[in-house]
Amino acid sequence: MSVRTPDPEPTGDEPFGQSAGSSNPGWLSEVELAEARRRMPMLYVEGVPVRVDGMGQVTEIGILLRATPMGEMTRTIVSGRVRYGETVRDALFRHLENDLGPMAFPLLPPQPSPFTVAEYFPIPGVSAFHDDRQHAVSLAFVVPVSGTCEPRQDALEVTWMTPEEAATDALADEMEGGRGTLIRLALASVGALR
Amino acid sequence: MSVRTPDPEPTGDEPFGQSAGSSNPGWLSEVELAEARRRMPMLYVEGVPVRVDGMGQVTEIGILLRATPMGEMTRTIVSGRVRYGETVRDALFRHLENDLGPMAFPLLPPQPSPFTVAEYFPIPGVSAFHDDRQHAVSLAFVVPVSGTCEPRQDALEVTWMTPEEAATDALADEMEGGRGTLIRLALASVGALR
Amino acid sequence: MSVRTPDPEPTGDEPFGQSAGSSNPGWLSEVELAEARRRMPMLYVEGVPVRVDGMGQVTEIGILLRATPMGEMTRTIVSGRVRYGETVRDALFRHLENDLGPMAFPLLPPQPSPFTVAEYFPIPGVSAFHDDRQHAVSLAFVVPVSGTCEPRQDALEVTWMTPEEAATDALADEMEGGRGTLIRLALASVGALR
Amino acid sequence: MSVRTPDPEPTGDEPFGQSAGSSNPGWLSEVELAEARRRMPMLYVEGVPVRVDGMGQVTEIGILLRATPMGEMTRTIVSGRVRYGETVRDALFRHLENDLGPMAFPLLPPQPSPFTVAEYFPIPGVSAFHDDRQHAVSLAFVVPVSGTCEPRQDALEVTWMTPEEAATDALADEMEGGRGTLIRLALASVGALR
Repeated sequence: MSVRTPDPEPTGDEPFGQSAGSSNPGWLSEVELAEARRRMPMLYVEGVPVRVDGMGQVTEIGILLRATPMGEMTRTIVSGRVRYGETVRDALFRHLENDLGPMAFPLLPPQPSPFTVAEYFPIPGVSAFHDDRQHAVSLAFVVPVSGTCEPRQDALEVTWMTPEEAATDALADEMEGGRGTLIRLALASVGALR
Repeated sequence: MSVRTPDPEPTGDEPFGQSAGSSNPGWLSEVELAEARRRMPMLYVEGVPVRVDGMGQVTEIGILLRATPMGEMTRTIVSGRVRYGETVRDALFRHLENDLGPMAFPLLPPQPSPFTVAEYFPIPGVSAFHDDRQHAVSLAFVVPVSGTCEPRQDALEVTWMTPEEAATDALADEMEGGRGTLIRLALASVGALR
Repeated sequence: MSVRTPDPEPTGDEPFGQSAGSSNPGWLSEVELAEARRRMPMLYVEGVPVRVDGMGQVTEIGILLRATPMGEMTRTIVSGRVRYGETVRDALFRHLENDLGPMAFPLLPPQPSPFTVAEYFPIPGVSAFHDDRQHAVSLAFVVPVSGTCEPRQDALEVTWMTPEEAATDALADEMEGGRGTLIRLALASVGALR
Repeated sequence: MSVRTPDPEPTGDEPFGQSAGSSNPGWLSEVELAEARRRMPMLYVEGVPVRVDGMGQVTEIGILLRATPMGEMTRTIVSGRVRYGETVRDALFRHLENDLGPMAFPLLPPQPSPFTVAEYFPIPGVSAFHDDRQHAVSLAFVVPVSGTCEPRQDALEVTWMTPEEAATDALADEMEGGRGTLIRLALASVGALR
């Protein structure tokens, strides 16, 4: 199975919202992006969507169901690349909106520090995380969402689970690249792991 | 000047919402509370109310204006004791509601870890924080509020300041017990200190 | 089974190093301490001793084997009360030295923030943590130790486990008051939980 | 003045320790590195060296004095790029050793989370941090060092300052790219900012 960090950017990789084909030096063609992935660590953000109660306590975790290009179903979280010139915060918001739809109303944490830094290596076993396509370093955040999630792009649905369900080995086995571990670290950071 | 950690519990110290005068062993009379303060560290929570923009970035800090029993005006933040049987989260919510009113709609952070632990000692100089009445250990949180603040109890008003204003020495000089330092640590934790 | 937060202070509860029986108002007799436990949250510190490699990565977790007053064997971590007038840092150091001996050479973290705040309630189920004797709020820290541990007091031995062993349900079942959860949160905070 | 994130890699940019000129696809020539800097966020690590006392409390901050290529003197901290295939931890250790020498004995924190994420943009004003050469995202850590620092490469000396000295505007003015702010955030994270 091909394990990959999702990077849904169908219309190219335009920083600052410019269109593909422009002469902007920040533009990366598909070929150049593939080349860069083999030579440099790629900066990612990941978001674990959660529901909280009136006291801020996490009650549910949102797990995405996604179909891979080969038609396999996998479970994952919100994840994507930070572009040239984009803040980490803007990248996180963009990927949340891409994956959860415009009505999710994510409440990004005020803190710039992630709950963990997940390091994905192309060779399995270097760390808990693996991406056969690239060396990616991901800043991971827990993000309460207060609205309605309507997955867009290639995410098929969001499944809301209790912290107990989200921490199971059964779920971890369905998740790509070691993200079952990331879910547990997210749960631990909000005191919801037993 | 008498520097004190605000602890506004005019009708006594009833855990679990029971009324003063009950035979609940958790009840502490004024005399007993005064006695305990001289013998044990008291557990406190403190909340720094903030306004955030749509991306979660802190734009303003809410500082309380309070009149001391001697009629002096001081600047402070939300602060109060954790009662027997009460969770830290419930205590934080209770004091936020007491000080900011029922329409403030605080969004408590999902994480149980405070941005800092402020240790108030009766003898100045032991730490950055000082309370001549007691040894208090305070778990301090940044709390976005999305509603309208109408101070209750002895807090006269909430002043919203930019991060720059909140970090000035002028404000720190108006704050009791070293809370100017606490404001700066709060700003640093959200990346809003320069 | 009687689940308790260890609080080994055989010669009384003398703040500032004074001897039992002095007229120091900070002194708590056994009776007074028992009384306070039923009326106020008690402030605790807990330390999870770890071994790290040359790169700072956690390789082993130190778990204490302790005999309860009834002769039962339980697994636990370093834990104890913060005294009146004592800093959190001093309390943590004191309990580490008490439980691990004077040659453990603990390297206390420079940060004042704990990796989690563990709330122990006398009634099970309020939180993940339980202490039938009291309401205790514990600031929990991961502490690398570089020396030799020779348990003192009622701790019989320190067992060094890999992160994998320390995260098992089997170990959690042997630990009192929900501290199996605390170990997992500690592992998560150092990225050593899978 | 040309403000730059130091990236001292005089013998090329060899991941996995290979020599310049090899056919390793991970190798970036000077030209390719310059090209990449204009198209992608570069991942950096930064370390604030500190001295701690026996209780883990920070007593001094190590600030590097460095000569720029134009012969200007600036103050800075340990900083450098994460290479392809390298862990964040290894990169931090490598740059600490490069800048502080082999006898500094840095004690890397067991936690993978930085105290802050500093985002350097080529255009000033986007964030608190600025690097006219590139968009760099830096994971910043406080690192106690227990040995002797003998700066190598282009760092001329390490100056040890008290937390008070390190927080002054005078020092901030001497630091490049907004790193005076980074020092204050570092101090705040260890409770050493007033």
